[in-house]
Amino acid sequence: MKNIVTDDTIVALSTPSGVGAIGVIRLSGPQSVTICEKMFPALKLKEAASHTLHFGVVMDGKEVVDEAVVGLFKAPKSYTCQDVVEISCHGSPYIIQKVLQLLIKQGARPARPGEFTMRAFLNGRFDLSQAEAVSDLIASESQAAHHIAMNQMRGGFSNELKELRQKLMDFASLVELELDFSEEDVEFANRAQLVNLLTEMISKIEKLSESFRLGNVLKNGVVTVIAGRPNAGKSTLLNALLNEERAIVSDIPGTTRDTIEEIITIEGIAFRLTDTAGIRHAADIIEREGVARTMQKIKQASIVVYLFDANEMSATDVLADIKKLGGEDNIAVLPVANKVDKVEGKIKAEVKFEGIGSLLFISAKNGQGIEELKKQLCNAALQGADMQHDIVLTNARHYESLQSTMQNLSNAKKGIETKLSGELVASDIRSALTHLGEITGEVTTDDLLGNIFGRFCIGK
Amino acid sequence: MKNIVTDDTIVALSTPSGVGAIGVIRLSGPQSVTICEKMFPALKLKEAASHTLHFGVVMDGKEVVDEAVVGLFKAPKSYTCQDVVEISCHGSPYIIQKVLQLLIKQGARPARPGEFTMRAFLNGRFDLSQAEAVSDLIASESQAAHHIAMNQMRGGFSNELKELRQKLMDFASLVELELDFSEEDVEFANRAQLVNLLTEMISKIEKLSESFRLGNVLKNGVVTVIAGRPNAGKSTLLNALLNEERAIVSDIPGTTRDTIEEIITIEGIAFRLTDTAGIRHAADIIEREGVARTMQKIKQASIVVYLFDANEMSATDVLADIKKLGGEDNIAVLPVANKVDKVEGKIKAEVKFEGIGSLLFISAKNGQGIEELKKQLCNAALQGADMQHDIVLTNARHYESLQSTMQNLSNAKKGIETKLSGELVASDIRSALTHLGEITGEVTTDDLLGNIFGRFCIGK
Repeated sequence: MKNIVTDDTIVALSTPSGVGAIGVIRLSGPQSVTICEKMFPALKLKEAASHTLHFGVVMDGKEVVDEAVVGLFKAPKSYTCQDVVEISCHGSPYIIQKVLQLLIKQGARPARPGEFTMRAFLNGRFDLSQAEAVSDLIASESQAAHHIAMNQMRGGFSNELKELRQKLMDFASLVELELDFSEEDVEFANRAQLVNLLTEMISKIEKLSESFRLGNVLKNGVVTVIAGRPNAGKSTLLNALLNEERAIVSDIPGTTRDTIEEIITIEGIAFRLTDTAGIRHAADIIEREGVARTMQKIKQASIVVYLFDANEMSATDVLADIKKLGGEDNIAVLPVANKVDKVEGKIKAEVKFEGIGSLLFISAKNGQGIEELKKQLCNAALQGADMQHDIVLTNARHYESLQSTMQNLSNAKKGIETKLSGELVASDIRSALTHLGEITGEVTTDDLLGNIFGRFCIGK
Repeated sequence: MKNIVTDDTIVALSTPSGVGAIGVIRLSGPQSVTICEKMFPALKLKEAASHTLHFGVVMDGKEVVDEAVVGLFKAPKSYTCQDVVEISCHGSPYIIQKVLQLLIKQGARPARPGEFTMRAFLNGRFDLSQAEAVSDLIASESQAAHHIAMNQMRGGFSNELKELRQKLMDFASLVELELDFSEEDVEFANRAQLVNLLTEMISKIEKLSESFRLGNVLKNGVVTVIAGRPNAGKSTLLNALLNEERAIVSDIPGTTRDTIEEIITIEGIAFRLTDTAGIRHAADIIEREGVARTMQKIKQASIVVYLFDANEMSATDVLADIKKLGGEDNIAVLPVANKVDKVEGKIKAEVKFEGIGSLLFISAKNGQGIEELKKQLCNAALQGADMQHDIVLTNARHYESLQSTMQNLSNAKKGIETKLSGELVASDIRSALTHLGEITGEVTTDDLLGNIFGRFCIGK
C-alpha cells in the first residue's frame, strides 16, 4: 500500500455538478479543520464538538465568497474515520469552483474518484466488497438493484465469505502445521473433515457463482424483447405494460430512457423492454430469418415474450416460431396468445393451442391477463431465487475471484483424494485463501484499489 | 398573504438531480422533526440540540432504504426560521426518490420552487430584494455577477433604499399631519427641505436606474462581437483571447458554451464573444450591408471590436467601416489595428491612422497588445463604474418599481413647486412609498411573491 497516501487532506464536490439550491464540498484528512478555519475567519471549529453545524461566511481576503453551513465530523467518528468537514454552499457553479480553489490554495488536494470511500476502507470502516457496494448503491435504479447493493454494503455478502474463509483458515493452519512436522508423518487435519469442508465450500461458491447471471440482470435491468409477427399487437402490449409505470419511472430524476428502450419496474425489478422498429417487425424476421441485427437483440435478451394473435395462428406455426426464437440456453421464451377478447371462447383457444407449455392468454387491448404476464415476467427474471433473502453476486471481480477460489479448492480436494503431498494441498488452500481475501480486501494491491475506486464518482 | 400557507411542512431535494456521492433532502415546517423521526426509528431527534448531526438508517418498514446523516436546525435558528431537517442520503436517484416518497407519505408536502426562501422572507429573515438575490447568487457565473448578487443578498441595496424610504416617510407623515389640520393652514413640513429631499432622491434613483444596463450586462455577460473584413485576423484574435482563459472556464462545472459563443472572464467580468461564421465574415456584410442577421448580432452587442489589418487598410476605409458599425447609442466600438508585427514601424502606423480616436495596435499572432485590449474591454464594460463599491441594479422588477417611484417623486416635486393642494402631493408621496416598498417587500401581494419565487429552483 506504499503508494497510497492517506495523511494529506482531500477535497471534492460531493453533490452532482450543475446549478442547485445547495452544493456540498467535502474535506477529509488531518488538516480538514485547520484549512476550513482559514476560509471562515469568524468560526472556531477546533474547539467545536464533533457532529455539529456552524453557520459562517466564506471570505477570500476582504471579499465575501458565500454564506455557508459547515458540518463537522471529528475523527474517528466520520465516514473516512478521519476529520471530515462538509461545507454546504449555495449551489452556484461559480461559488463552488471558487470555494474549491480557495480550499486547494489553503493546502487541500483534489480527491480522486472514490478516494473518500477508499480511506474508509483503508481505515477499517468496512471491507472491500462493502466499499464496492457503495458505488453500486449510488448507481442502483430499481428496488432489486438497491436491495442487493444495500445488503452487500451492510455486510451480508462479506459475512458469508468471512465464515467460509475462517473455516478454511482453521484447517489451513493445521495443514501448515503438519508441514512443519512433515518428517514425523502426523495428521493434525482430519482429511475426511477437510474434504467435507471443501465440498461444502465448493457447493456454496458454485451457488454464489450461479447467482452472478441473476445478479447482473437485477443490477442492470432484465433485457426483455417483445417479438411476434406483424399485427400480433406488440406495441399495444408495450403500451399496456408501460401505461401505469411510465409516470413512476419518469418521476425518478436521472432515469435515462433512450428511444430504443423503455424501462418498467415490476415488483421492484427493472425490465428493459426493447422497442425497436426492428423488433416490432421481428415476425418478418422470423419468417425470413437471418436479419442479424434483430436476432442479435434477442440473443442479448434474458426474456423473449413471443406474442401472437390467437385468432390467426395455428399451434404448429406458434411452435415453429418459438423454436426459431429459443435457440439460446439462457433465454426464457414466454409464449403469449393475444386478442383473446376476439376469440369465441377461451376454452376453444386453449384446446387449439394444446401442447404449448405454460401458454398465457391476454388481451393487450382491454388489459386482460396483463397482471398474470407481469407475474410471469418476474418469475422468469428471478429464476426461483428469493430476492429478499438470497445473497446475489453482482460484481464481475468477485465472480472471477470466486471462480479462481473454486478451482483452487477443487485442486486441493483432488489432491487429498489422490493423496498428493501436503505441500501441494497447502499451496492450493493458500491460493484459495488469497482469492477469497481479494474479494473482501484482506489481500489487495495498489493497482487493484486504484482500479476499483477509479470507477467511483468524485466526492464519494 | 391569505393564500400562502407556511404552517405545513415542505420537502424537496436541494442538491442538483442526477447521480452523485450525496444528495441532500431538506424539510422545513413544524412537523419536520416528527416526520423525520418516523423515517429513522433509531434516532431521537426531538430531544437533540439544534445544529447537530446524526448518523441514522432510513427504514421503510423492515426494508433498509439508506444509511444517511441528518442535520438538525431548530426554529428559529434556521434558514427559514422554522424547524429544518437536512437528510444527506447516498446520491442515487432511486434512493432520493424513495426517501422523498416516504417523507411525503409521512405528511410532508413537496415544496414549490423557492418556497424555502419565501418562508425565510415571510418570517423576516431578510427582505424581498435580498431573497431575490439568493436566486441571482446561485445563477451567477462570473465574479462581477457574484459580487453584485452577494452585495444585494447581504443588504447593501436594501440599506440604500431603506434610508431613502425612511427620509421620505418622515416627510410624508408631516405632510399627512398638515392634511389633518388643513383648515388651519399650517405647514409642518418645510417645503424647501422637501423639494431638496425629492431632488436628492430623484437623482439617486436616476443613478441607480442608469446602473441597470450595466448590471444586466455584468449579470448576464457582456455581449462582445469581433467584426472586421476577411483576413483581418478575427479568429486568431479570438483564440488569443480564449487561450489562457479556456482552461479556467471549462474547469467551472455547469458553464455552458454553445457553438456560437465563447465565454471568457477578464478581471471577473464575463464576456460573451460571438463567434459565428457570419460575424467572421462581417466585413463582407459591412461592404454589402443589410445581411440582417449578422447586423442584428451587432445591435445586441454591448461592445464591438472592429479589427482590421494595419497593413491593408487606409484610415478612410477604417473610419467608413466604423461609421457603419457604430450606429447604435449603446454600443461601444473599439477599433483595433492588427498585424502590427508586420508593419514596418509602429510610429508610421500611428501616423497612417491619425484621426481615429483611441486606436489600439495589436498582433493577435504574437500576443502584443492583447493585455491592453483586455483592459479596454473591461473599461468599456464598466463604463466608469466602480464594481467594488457602487450599488448596481440587476433586476427588471426593481428597475420598473424605481421608474414608477421616480415618476411619483417628480409629480410630487412639481406639485409643491406649482403649489398644488397638499392632498395631491401626499398622494404622490404615498405612491412613491408603495413602489419603493415593493422592492424590499414591505408591500407585496400573493401574485407578486408567486411570480418572484416561482423563478427559483426547487429546494431553495
